[in-house]
Amino acid sequence: MPEIHAHRRRSLRALLRDAELDALLVTDLLNIRYLTGFTGSQAALVVHAADEPGAESGTVFSTDGRYRTQAAKQVPDLERVIERPSERVIAGHLAARSGHYRRTGFESGHVTVDGHEELAAVAAGVELVRAPGLVERLRLIKDASEVEAIRMACAAADRALADLVEHGGLRPGRTELEVARELEARMREHGAAGPAFETIVAAGAHSAVPHHRPTGAELAAGDLVKMDFGALVDGYHSDMTRTVVLGDPADWQREIYELVRTAQAAGRDAVRVGADVREVDGAAREVIDQAGHGEHYPHGLGHGVGLEIHEAPALSQRGAGRIEEGMVVTVEPGVYLPERGGVRIEDTLVVRDSTPELLTLTTKELVAV
Amino acid sequence: MPEIHAHRRRSLRALLRDAELDALLVTDLLNIRYLTGFTGSQAALVVHAADEPGAESGTVFSTDGRYRTQAAKQVPDLERVIERPSERVIAGHLAARSGHYRRTGFESGHVTVDGHEELAAVAAGVELVRAPGLVERLRLIKDASEVEAIRMACAAADRALADLVEHGGLRPGRTELEVARELEARMREHGAAGPAFETIVAAGAHSAVPHHRPTGAELAAGDLVKMDFGALVDGYHSDMTRTVVLGDPADWQREIYELVRTAQAAGRDAVRVGADVREVDGAAREVIDQAGHGEHYPHGLGHGVGLEIHEAPALSQRGAGRIEEGMVVTVEPGVYLPERGGVRIEDTLVVRDSTPELLTLTTKELVAV
Repeated sequence: MPEIHAHRRRSLRALLRDAELDALLVTDLLNIRYLTGFTGSQAALVVHAADEPGAESGTVFSTDGRYRTQAAKQVPDLERVIERPSERVIAGHLAARSGHYRRTGFESGHVTVDGHEELAAVAAGVELVRAPGLVERLRLIKDASEVEAIRMACAAADRALADLVEHGGLRPGRTELEVARELEARMREHGAAGPAFETIVAAGAHSAVPHHRPTGAELAAGDLVKMDFGALVDGYHSDMTRTVVLGDPADWQREIYELVRTAQAAGRDAVRVGADVREVDGAAREVIDQAGHGEHYPHGLGHGVGLEIHEAPALSQRGAGRIEEGMVVTVEPGVYLPERGGVRIEDTLVVRDSTPELLTLTTKELVAV
Repeated sequence: MPEIHAHRRRSLRALLRDAELDALLVTDLLNIRYLTGFTGSQAALVVHAADEPGAESGTVFSTDGRYRTQAAKQVPDLERVIERPSERVIAGHLAARSGHYRRTGFESGHVTVDGHEELAAVAAGVELVRAPGLVERLRLIKDASEVEAIRMACAAADRALADLVEHGGLRPGRTELEVARELEARMREHGAAGPAFETIVAAGAHSAVPHHRPTGAELAAGDLVKMDFGALVDGYHSDMTRTVVLGDPADWQREIYELVRTAQAAGRDAVRVGADVREVDGAAREVIDQAGHGEHYPHGLGHGVGLEIHEAPALSQRGAGRIEEGMVVTVEPGVYLPERGGVRIEDTLVVRDSTPELLTLTTKELVAV
């Protein structure tokens, strides 16, 4: 879909002109993928601010010989230089036409201190200007093709969990690892290229560890079983957490489950265009604080999801900025009682002009399996 | 194994004293894992050069509340500060005791330009000095526990491939993706936490693409099938490529196979203590060049393997340095004939004082399945 990538580069050019830059040197591979469609592991790109109809004058892509064929297919619409290391190749290109790239931004949030020194040495005659977060600014707002990829990833996760439960995959005696592997295999059956991150399955006391890694521990009757997992589709991630009980829920389990569910609903309700991300976090946090469990909720409410599993915006007291239409975020409060058990409920949703649209559709009722 | 990590920190202290540094601020998560055993996703560490018996004075670790329990278990021997963002927390700690951390190195090969600016603003009174690659210098030489982890990872891959072949997993009509998924599942059965990287299965003309991603394309009689895959065990990677033929090999297939096999053996022979990495690359490259296939071999000979799938040293004409005992490297020449097919043969091996020790043990005879 070269048009989508050309459109994204046009949007970037507007930001470049605002920042009075002649060009942007793009070295982050995800940003390169976003702007060109290239999925290889070694590349660099310079996007020139000049927007000449029908031309990409000054916009040049580089990768190396391993990706010659792939680049011709994925990036047919750009001038390509097949040589590595591509960062250095593009920096040399800037130097050779330094009058055309006088003020060139670089991704100071990605380029290392040593990497910057090397680039500056090669790009003689070019003023390399810090320009952090320009492509990320575009990536904050998902276009229709991105929402569709995330929707498919969410659907793969929903279906995997439904299949797991339907086929009796959650039962005493199975290990956390077995459940995690089955969820991942079932996501693949439903179209995922793989898991979006290391699947978390945490049973019993393990569920009280927010980021427990699955072990050989067996699920037991009466356990809370917390599953935090997602699928990867076309480079895009989904993220969902559900917590179930094996057998009849105890009163304390029911109590923290309902608390987290209420807090999660409050958090989702707060995801409105124009809301400050700290307010959104606060809406869910207040519910948990007022129930006296503030200390048992040691993380933020959520985060953006896209080409990265964690990306802007951060919905937390440390975050900054406002909710905008087209953002895709998670809402995932939790309450963790050390040595006893914990509950987290998490959805991925896309911000619309009215209420947000849920992309993860699995029920949030307390399920006893 | 806190002793191993304490030992590594002692080795680091010797490098710090050589560099006339009071301390090193470690922010790369793999380097933190190497020095402490911590496997979480958010942390920072300062290692002080002072080596006081029985104490870790001035050496402080930080992570956040999600990892409180895990950090207590994995990093029992260090002072821990549970607060985030940990880089900023540790930078604040440096500022509070700036007389003790006067000249503190930072990982300029990992810290971004923007990140450095933030650290410098917080670490008032401390001179932050570029100190790239110090922990990586230690990681170049694998200790016994690391070699064992890589050995287990290599064994999981060897066994997975043997099982795949034995159970008829390579046959016309199966897709590249099915074979890749089966290899990954079988590696897990043999103890892998997962694949070391995205498994490559490339059949027929696809085998001519060095880094082909597996597709729904079916294997066909007469195809070269190139499989490049590895396992992850305790955070350590293995890396192996084997290329087989479905049915009777054609003459051209046999010819490039034997060429690559000869080049690979020459490359392995050249992996000797004291050899320049460019010589090692050259030993294999010369074989392929002399057969007139130099242009069909567009990548380096190999790379280090450890906590990263690609780490130092690079065995290539662009690399620098000499082979040392205890390095773990791959040797992986290939010949790729566009639109026809390609062969790559790759082993992971550990450098010993005499000949290197093979960790990947699958036969390199031409196998016709």
